[in-house]
Amino acid sequence: MSFTPVQSDDVAIATIRTLAADVVAKANSGHPGAPMGMAPAAHVLFSRFVNANPKNSKWFNRDRFVLSNGCALQYVLLHLLGYKLSMDDLKAFRQLDSLTPGHPEAGHTDGVEVTTGPLGQGFGNGVGLAMAQAHLAATFNKDGFELIKNYTYVFCGDGCLMEGVASEAASLAGHLQLGNLIVVYDDNHISIDGDTNVAFTENVDQRFMSYGWQVLVVENGDTDLASIHNAIAAAKQEKNKPTIIRLKTTIGYGSKQQGTHGVHGSPLKADDIQALKTKFGLPADQSFYVPQATYDAYAEVAKRGAALEAEWNSLLTAYGQKYPKEHAELVRRIAGGLPENWQQSLPVYKPSDSAVASRKLSEIVLTAITPALPELFGGSADLTGSNLTKVKGTTDFQPPSTGLGSYAGTYIRFGVREHGMGAIANGIAAYGGIIPFVATFLNFVSYAAGATRLSALSGHQVIWVATHDSIGLGEDGPTHQPIETAIHLRATPNLAFWRPADGNETSAAYYSAITSKKTPSVLSLSRQNLPNLEGSTIEKALKGGYVVHEEQSEDLTIVSAGSEVSIAIEAAAKLKAEGIKTRVVSLPCWHTFDQQSEEYRLSVLRSGAPILSLEALSTAGWQKYSHEQYGLPGWGASGPYQKVYEKFGITGSNIASVGKKVVNFYKQKGGPVVSPLVKAF
Amino acid sequence: MSFTPVQSDDVAIATIRTLAADVVAKANSGHPGAPMGMAPAAHVLFSRFVNANPKNSKWFNRDRFVLSNGCALQYVLLHLLGYKLSMDDLKAFRQLDSLTPGHPEAGHTDGVEVTTGPLGQGFGNGVGLAMAQAHLAATFNKDGFELIKNYTYVFCGDGCLMEGVASEAASLAGHLQLGNLIVVYDDNHISIDGDTNVAFTENVDQRFMSYGWQVLVVENGDTDLASIHNAIAAAKQEKNKPTIIRLKTTIGYGSKQQGTHGVHGSPLKADDIQALKTKFGLPADQSFYVPQATYDAYAEVAKRGAALEAEWNSLLTAYGQKYPKEHAELVRRIAGGLPENWQQSLPVYKPSDSAVASRKLSEIVLTAITPALPELFGGSADLTGSNLTKVKGTTDFQPPSTGLGSYAGTYIRFGVREHGMGAIANGIAAYGGIIPFVATFLNFVSYAAGATRLSALSGHQVIWVATHDSIGLGEDGPTHQPIETAIHLRATPNLAFWRPADGNETSAAYYSAITSKKTPSVLSLSRQNLPNLEGSTIEKALKGGYVVHEEQSEDLTIVSAGSEVSIAIEAAAKLKAEGIKTRVVSLPCWHTFDQQSEEYRLSVLRSGAPILSLEALSTAGWQKYSHEQYGLPGWGASGPYQKVYEKFGITGSNIASVGKKVVNFYKQKGGPVVSPLVKAF
Repeated sequence: MSFTPVQSDDVAIATIRTLAADVVAKANSGHPGAPMGMAPAAHVLFSRFVNANPKNSKWFNRDRFVLSNGCALQYVLLHLLGYKLSMDDLKAFRQLDSLTPGHPEAGHTDGVEVTTGPLGQGFGNGVGLAMAQAHLAATFNKDGFELIKNYTYVFCGDGCLMEGVASEAASLAGHLQLGNLIVVYDDNHISIDGDTNVAFTENVDQRFMSYGWQVLVVENGDTDLASIHNAIAAAKQEKNKPTIIRLKTTIGYGSKQQGTHGVHGSPLKADDIQALKTKFGLPADQSFYVPQATYDAYAEVAKRGAALEAEWNSLLTAYGQKYPKEHAELVRRIAGGLPENWQQSLPVYKPSDSAVASRKLSEIVLTAITPALPELFGGSADLTGSNLTKVKGTTDFQPPSTGLGSYAGTYIRFGVREHGMGAIANGIAAYGGIIPFVATFLNFVSYAAGATRLSALSGHQVIWVATHDSIGLGEDGPTHQPIETAIHLRATPNLAFWRPADGNETSAAYYSAITSKKTPSVLSLSRQNLPNLEGSTIEKALKGGYVVHEEQSEDLTIVSAGSEVSIAIEAAAKLKAEGIKTRVVSLPCWHTFDQQSEEYRLSVLRSGAPILSLEALSTAGWQKYSHEQYGLPGWGASGPYQKVYEKFGITGSNIASVGKKVVNFYKQKGGPVVSPLVKAF
Repeated sequence: MSFTPVQSDDVAIATIRTLAADVVAKANSGHPGAPMGMAPAAHVLFSRFVNANPKNSKWFNRDRFVLSNGCALQYVLLHLLGYKLSMDDLKAFRQLDSLTPGHPEAGHTDGVEVTTGPLGQGFGNGVGLAMAQAHLAATFNKDGFELIKNYTYVFCGDGCLMEGVASEAASLAGHLQLGNLIVVYDDNHISIDGDTNVAFTENVDQRFMSYGWQVLVVENGDTDLASIHNAIAAAKQEKNKPTIIRLKTTIGYGSKQQGTHGVHGSPLKADDIQALKTKFGLPADQSFYVPQATYDAYAEVAKRGAALEAEWNSLLTAYGQKYPKEHAELVRRIAGGLPENWQQSLPVYKPSDSAVASRKLSEIVLTAITPALPELFGGSADLTGSNLTKVKGTTDFQPPSTGLGSYAGTYIRFGVREHGMGAIANGIAAYGGIIPFVATFLNFVSYAAGATRLSALSGHQVIWVATHDSIGLGEDGPTHQPIETAIHLRATPNLAFWRPADGNETSAAYYSAITSKKTPSVLSLSRQNLPNLEGSTIEKALKGGYVVHEEQSEDLTIVSAGSEVSIAIEAAAKLKAEGIKTRVVSLPCWHTFDQQSEEYRLSVLRSGAPILSLEALSTAGWQKYSHEQYGLPGWGASGPYQKVYEKFGITGSNIASVGKKVVNFYKQKGGPVVSPLVKAF
């Protein structure tokens, strides 16, 4: 396929450039330079290559487009292509409650695949989108039925490539030979600090070749449309390597300040925009002007997309006739529904069942539910044997040529790349049809904090299996023992941080994680064995918090989570022997508990007696649910875990003694004890 | 310098290998494989190259050694070289309160430069150590007085190289042409998931060449000591590039399981260790055996180190005679003392001074104190113009050949590499003589969470200038607006998170950050203008919390921080007009406030009236200091910041109305209102 320029090309490119300048100028905020520089590539890509239907942004086999250096370009393109984004929406760029917030947000604006802006994330998302495509293609395509065959296109800038998250994802993408991934790198030599030569002088071509990518260079990305076209075409030809196209552009092309960081993050001046429009043959006195020819040209693109979707729908129907079972499964997975009764395989425990580490309980759940949930697709950041995430019988997601697995394999070897893993998982979730899970030690979820917050903001269903979740990991010591990690994740909106106390709670955590289609979950799991509790059930745990040990007219309630709940119960027993009646509440998931009715919450953390919290982590945040807090005052320690628990007084006998102090203190204080949940507003 | 093998070499290497195996076996926990594989390189490096004095681990011009894949090897070497680490300490590996915790911790064990174990961090630290050397050399060395001329040696494994933090640091190190940095990469093809071919198949040599490094390869790192020697010698010869030596080794060399991941993270079996000892000619029946010849050989190394230090001390004395001023300054900086009266340059504000963004206040402080504090050495992750961290007149830290600055320059262009920046800053702080500062948006400090927690654990004085610290950044929107970030950092032990409300508080935050030699500080700063408060002073703010607006017999106290304090004061004025007496407490730093006397803390957050917290972030954690909490219920929003504040009700009038609810609620409730700081234990 060779490139045939048409007259409307230059007009469309000029329109993108001036529209971006107008959008940023009206908002008086944003980044005009990159959209102006990337306009030609964007136009060639969307007019000649991208298979998508603007009238149905959810068509499953659409090409995915990620603007990793998230900016106004995305909105301009969505508008021109006919997505649900009006000119008024463009004019409301960066205004309150608009469809055009400062950076594109998935789930907020029609046609935005992933949330970008925080640099490097979109690059990682792109790798995830491409992995999802490869996996689903290998799983569902049949001879003559190439149902899943889209490409993922990522635009990124210097900033994205400097970020470690992109390096991690790029290295893995090369290993995985993702021929369906095409990155266009806007090599414009400008970042916020000015010329990139102040900090970014690596040889990007050589670096990506080292990762196993195809590297193509377009010397003149400003005007040489044919070269842009040929590079993308060549990228599509290469089936066994991801491609990066280094596109040399002039940032803010056409502006008086083109090629300088003056056009990076500030609006262009009015006279500059006027001159720009004149230069490009557009009316200088009109803002937000789109020539009809441009609308028409993009309408053609949209028409092609609609036709492609119709064709695909026919193919899907034919597939259904020939492969009814696979068809039903694919349709189910695209819709995001779960198989009936999948949850019946969730393990249920009795108190007499032996004590098991919750990381092991997690493995038992995964082993039980994986046959019923083929959409589980994930792995570990090189801690498989510790996270216990590989279910027996599963095979690796690997390029067939490695001899180590296939793209149909469901187990991903992420390497020691936590941040990349998190961003990739977001991309996989965004693709659809898959529930991604990822794993590392809880402490190292922090390496991926940039990605976990975007999971939550975007509503991506990603499941983190986060083992070794406290000083209970023992010997590895303070470098590996999370202290601040739980409250960090608990304070993240729309993120369910589960810290189950036993088998039933672990099953509940998985039930919640699997059924929460718009919320990521972090499952915080122990290395050490935990007894199965009398009084725990999946149903109760699904409320996020419940009374695991009841007493009437109690003197004290201890509220705890995870591995410390059994210690709280031990303390309660000791206190009872001394005549102090102690209830124990297990609070495995604050996010879930907070969603329960006030009545229920107040029945669990009720008024009448003081509430003491217990957790082998920072006490920060527990004040919301308790009057008194016991936890770690600082860093952990290296040693056999029982000794580490003793050192910090997290034992049944010490907590009993702390509990007595609390009871006495409130006795002396006198007056009614009101639940901390009773609030003024 | 060519390599002359001596008989003791093989014995020493065998000793390191077997000692590592014994140490891990006794602990029944740890990683024997890597130390066994790296023993030859470690021995050649320390016996032939490393200039250090085990009897004075703080000698300033010592070569720095970083074991990025932190493991038992470090302890074995420290013991053999004669650092303060006895055989009993080795036997207490991974035991409670020992000098030999699971992973090496700076400040905990003599001779450990930086805390390692969390992968990739040590690599970044190494780059920082090398930058510090280059900077101090350029600043203090004179013809004939090469006082600062050490090398930094980093050992790392596959895991470190997969981490994005290492990629970021490596790219910058290449740009900076750090010829004083030598990395030995243990290319043993094994990580926890088994053969690295499952996830790590990039061409490491090519990748590092792309970064501008010299790449050397030792084909047989198991036994070819001459090649190891020659590679290190060649690395030292290359003055304008960092070097990575890819050393092909056999993990667990000598074990029956050598070359498999069976020796990676689990102790060797007893019979395997016996066979190993026999194989290497050491007594099979003795554990923790060190031949006298090995102790003797390392005693020679230590002697050489002591002589080098003595020589250096003479040079320093002579330098003092010729350059008394520079000498005094260097001595001061090595000792870590601050110049007298430096704090007199801290700006002080009156309420009549105009409103200024605290990021700008930070710039004013930096501009004022930088002339007095030449040890300030830092920069931004490509947000200089937003973070306002570059003081006029400072020059860039750059290799002279770039024409952009010099190694004597104090301003670092980190590129968009937050995590690398954090790890590098830890290395710079660990070197000594420098106070590193780094900058990005508060939201992107999360990208560097892996490094900030190690700053705190290691006691590194690193100052983070974290601007754009809330929804007050406005248009960039939710992707850039921190919600969970503050509590994450506040919950990190030994980390001072400052959120100053005005000019005086910003000066206080800097005073605290500059004088806290063993605590990192994150200064959370606004993009928007903040009025200077009546009632704020540097002295008061230095307590971490104080009454900024007093009322007797108050009906309500509002406690707030940062940009919301002035809104609380506005609310208090409105409430007063309605007859509700409202105190306002500013709490810029929880960490600092918590260190004040109980009496003081209870005088600030006193009993008698309800306390309402106000912050434009997650409310998580504020329950510790207040009865009621107002903050963000979820993500922020994109728009002009005033409108975003209005949307979330963070305005004087809405907070006044919330305050009324609180007052009424507590009136209805009746009974005494006790300070939340009054606790049972």
